Amino acid sequence: MEIAYFNGKLLPKSEIKISPDDRGFLFADGIYEVVRWYEGSFYDMTSHLSRFKRSMRELRINWADADMFPSIAQDLIKQNNLLTQPAMVYFQVTRGVAKRTHHFPSTEVNPTLYACAWGFVPDIDSIKAGIKVMLKEDIRWSRCDIKSVALLANTISFQEACENGLKECIFVRNGFITEGTRSNIFFVIDKTLYTHPESNWVLSGVTRKNILRIAQDAGINIREEALEEKRLRFTQEAFITNTSAEITPVIDIGGNSIGEGVPGPVTRLIIEKFNAEISALKG
Amino acid sequence: MEIAYFNGKLLPKSEIKISPDDRGFLFADGIYEVVRWYEGSFYDMTSHLSRFKRSMRELRINWADADMFPSIAQDLIKQNNLLTQPAMVYFQVTRGVAKRTHHFPSTEVNPTLYACAWGFVPDIDSIKAGIKVMLKEDIRWSRCDIKSVALLANTISFQEACENGLKECIFVRNGFITEGTRSNIFFVIDKTLYTHPESNWVLSGVTRKNILRIAQDAGINIREEALEEKRLRFTQEAFITNTSAEITPVIDIGGNSIGEGVPGPVTRLIIEKFNAEISALKG
Repeated sequence: MEIAYFNGKLLPKSEIKISPDDRGFLFADGIYEVVRWYEGSFYDMTSHLSRFKRSMRELRINWADADMFPSIAQDLIKQNNLLTQPAMVYFQVTRGVAKRTHHFPSTEVNPTLYACAWGFVPDIDSIKAGIKVMLKEDIRWSRCDIKSVALLANTISFQEACENGLKECIFVRNGFITEGTRSNIFFVIDKTLYTHPESNWVLSGVTRKNILRIAQDAGINIREEALEEKRLRFTQEAFITNTSAEITPVIDIGGNSIGEGVPGPVTRLIIEKFNAEISALKG
Repeated sequence: MEIAYFNGKLLPKSEIKISPDDRGFLFADGIYEVVRWYEGSFYDMTSHLSRFKRSMRELRINWADADMFPSIAQDLIKQNNLLTQPAMVYFQVTRGVAKRTHHFPSTEVNPTLYACAWGFVPDIDSIKAGIKVMLKEDIRWSRCDIKSVALLANTISFQEACENGLKECIFVRNGFITEGTRSNIFFVIDKTLYTHPESNWVLSGVTRKNILRIAQDAGINIREEALEEKRLRFTQEAFITNTSAEITPVIDIGGNSIGEGVPGPVTRLIIEKFNAEISALKG
């Protein structure tokens, strides 16, 4: 039986009743976070917790006990017998339940808290062989830095990629590459690693941040700078990062092969160093 | 006891249980429609039904029985004893319940259907005296033509207006006025009526469409053309339109008085003609 967390309690997921007046359901007025469990530890829980709180702060959703996130996540792993396997914990907080009005509820209501966990089979094949992705005009709003549940643009764009047999859709805004529907993207040009700087146009990925640290420690030259789409043809390597897919090489963008069409040496080096950290984490 | 509609049944609203796996809750992957009940008839149900179906079509949400919308709306009015008072019916359809994945569910699921109705007190004061509104950069996505529940940008912008003592937030994109967080906007310059053309940047408002017809019948010159923000100072009149607020004069935009700071003659003429149609509707 799947156990989930809802408004302060662990309970069978099937018993959870989201109100139709929940502002998450009516307005996408909520935020979420996903953390990865590596058979013993969560990956960089500190950064996830910090982003989780920032998202709420930006939307002025007040959950005073947000610091309980790690212990709730741990409880969900235990209760669902996921301790010894790769797993994900999903946590969503909405502004709460109130009569439908575009403005926030007139009298403050409790936020809705929902979390669940699931076992997870990493897509090793994609990480080994690399993936093909599509390019598309960025149709999202201009606060992509908030990890909100207003994900409609992301889902329809990701769906479009899937229907074209591709593994991600990468957005282009005003001629510059921003990020994917569910990942950040990095490029290697002449041994320099490029990724979009932190801004309102991209999510500040936890894996993104750690990859920048790992690359720097490995002596790789880094530029947090948006790449113009027309510079894609000079790109020798590319990869996407996120919590579930870690570092996945990109070997083709919009039908154009990247480099030799196989994961390149900089990407492989970074994956190796990332994996070493993960091994240490698992103890 | 409030009666609502959920997945084929009328039932007490308190008994409705939205699943935490509903894609409306997790991804804002759904659409909605709001119709106004005028003590005897719905206002332009034909246009609302047509837009409702278009929204679903654009997102490829399949509810084969969408034509039931008007009869369900009527049932809700009756069951909630709203027949003889102003009321609203809200109808939301999401892609349904499925394991959380960015792509659409791998095997087709039933959409989630939810509708409710409530009695409504029109804001006559605002319609008489006019309202003050703010201006803000349009932070929404680029498919504003779809009436989706991904309304986070709208709610936080409307909230900002409220906190400034204003009744609407009007968006500006690339220097041009698009629309409000929950309304279309019209301007009068030298006896010509301007409003943003139908496009991906605005919702195709049902009231908007009817106002264009009414204005045309009244011999008013019409231009469906986006107004540059810098032309606001030449504006003699302005008003917003939507299903609940009908036609509400705007007397101040971003601290700048419009015309004489009172509802102007073109606005008043249009309100008068609109009200005549409503009276005929009520029989």
